[in-house]
Amino acid sequence: MQSFIELSKIFADKFSIKHFPDEPDTLYSPAQYILQLGGKRIRPACVLMGNELFGEINPDSFYVATAIELFHNFSLIHDDIMDKAPLRRGMQTVHTRYGESTAILAGDVMLVQAYEYLNKMNPEHLQSILSLFNKTAKEVCEGQQLDMDFETKATVFLSEYIKMISLKTSVLLASSLQMGAVMGGAGIGSQEHLYNFGKNLGVAFQVQDDYLDAFGNPEKFGKQIGGDILANKKTFLMIHVFEKASKNQLTELNQLIKNNPTDKIEKVLQIFRDCKVDEWAKSLKEHYLQKALHHLDEIAVVSSRKSSLFELAEYLIQRES
Amino acid sequence: MQSFIELSKIFADKFSIKHFPDEPDTLYSPAQYILQLGGKRIRPACVLMGNELFGEINPDSFYVATAIELFHNFSLIHDDIMDKAPLRRGMQTVHTRYGESTAILAGDVMLVQAYEYLNKMNPEHLQSILSLFNKTAKEVCEGQQLDMDFETKATVFLSEYIKMISLKTSVLLASSLQMGAVMGGAGIGSQEHLYNFGKNLGVAFQVQDDYLDAFGNPEKFGKQIGGDILANKKTFLMIHVFEKASKNQLTELNQLIKNNPTDKIEKVLQIFRDCKVDEWAKSLKEHYLQKALHHLDEIAVVSSRKSSLFELAEYLIQRES
Repeated sequence: MQSFIELSKIFADKFSIKHFPDEPDTLYSPAQYILQLGGKRIRPACVLMGNELFGEINPDSFYVATAIELFHNFSLIHDDIMDKAPLRRGMQTVHTRYGESTAILAGDVMLVQAYEYLNKMNPEHLQSILSLFNKTAKEVCEGQQLDMDFETKATVFLSEYIKMISLKTSVLLASSLQMGAVMGGAGIGSQEHLYNFGKNLGVAFQVQDDYLDAFGNPEKFGKQIGGDILANKKTFLMIHVFEKASKNQLTELNQLIKNNPTDKIEKVLQIFRDCKVDEWAKSLKEHYLQKALHHLDEIAVVSSRKSSLFELAEYLIQRES
Repeated sequence: MQSFIELSKIFADKFSIKHFPDEPDTLYSPAQYILQLGGKRIRPACVLMGNELFGEINPDSFYVATAIELFHNFSLIHDDIMDKAPLRRGMQTVHTRYGESTAILAGDVMLVQAYEYLNKMNPEHLQSILSLFNKTAKEVCEGQQLDMDFETKATVFLSEYIKMISLKTSVLLASSLQMGAVMGGAGIGSQEHLYNFGKNLGVAFQVQDDYLDAFGNPEKFGKQIGGDILANKKTFLMIHVFEKASKNQLTELNQLIKNNPTDKIEKVLQIFRDCKVDEWAKSLKEHYLQKALHHLDEIAVVSSRKSSLFELAEYLIQRES
């Protein structure tokens, strides 16, 4: 049994090769570029952990893990175009550096390359892995579309937001774990519990991310506090405050969103606090974390095999001390 | 044995279903939209013809054919974004109608759906079909990138142009035929001849397309004559004329390209004629057509089975009477 950190390091070493041909360089350099920006390789490590939960690592799991990481980077390239994001990990995004057309194509060819890695597998698990991969890929596209739709929607309900965020981010974590379980020969019941562990953990992580953007310690968080508030982003907190606020608070919120005054962050945070949005978000995060851990408990393997998954949960979710 | 026209009609009927779920409609309606614009369904018919050349149609060939047609439409959606094309088949392109971000995602999800159709196949041929599909998909992306690179390149050699156009358009025709051959149980030698039939036929078609844009009968051609000349597009004719023109003709050509006078088409056509570019293009088309037919000859099945492929060649390439 290897730890999450060990597995992500083992994967990162294997992954740091050239994944594309030399020519045309104008297409493949941009594709290789984003892979060299690094990243925590959480999802491919999930494939390996999901496998190891049920047995020795099947060498083909590295193909699956590589496909997952390429898929993730494909989605980052295309999402960055849609979001007009200038930077990723402090470096220029692919479209900023190479132009939008090349970024579209570099993403496309990365998705194809992901499938080519899957096709290197022994045929035994190919169809079930492809099926899971395709389902998840479509869901990630759906999540991104819903996220864009929400930008122009007046009211977004919490249930809609949870669905969107699950599709956009959690299902890839969940299905990475499940694919590992498939490779490890797990039964369908265990696969589903592991999937739901990942899915709920992903939602808990997103609640935390939204919380930290508003209430985090700027030094620890590493981003500007209140960025979501400034950008009028619909987040767990913003959606909840619209459900909780009094008539006066609603009027004030709408004014702040419309007029973008210089003290906007401070004033919105005050309304968040008055409506106890901070407390609510902490308990919502805890709720999803507990759901995740419950599914992990339900998997019928000895607890010692689950240590890397507990470690993953601890790594992703900060507990209040 | 069924004719090319019959097979393309049979495919078109089966294909005219909904290929995507209902929700989110904001993603899947745009994807379905382009499929309803029609098209000649040449590539999926090639899968079926390639299969029938060697035996009865394997029902799984329809999954392969569907995947090929979805792939083709995925590439049209993304290419139209890159080319900033407002219209396709006389209707709004996906990005014009639904916005670029949604068009990127609709293309992505269509590519995933193509793989999902492949995954419905019996496992027997899955890995070899996936391998061919992935190779071709990457080549099509490479061709599109080279085409964009050529726009800003001062000199493009004929060999480079042929490589680009082969990747961008011919390999999909060629590999559609080869995939059909795989499904029909053909040996590797026959597969390769059929692939090369398709590849050379595709190049012949593209030479003809460039020729007709300059010298075609406007009524038959259905497009404005000289569109490529007006847009300073690098075509077979334009690349060749730069290799053949005298110093004076080169000076005149460069002036015409730079200044875009109202009589530009007429004057460029005159230089084309003076340099015998029209004759050259006709013989180049004939050269590739003959290469294609030679590969078809070399396939060891009775001639009567090849009738639909001769019909395809006749359909795509107009012979001088």
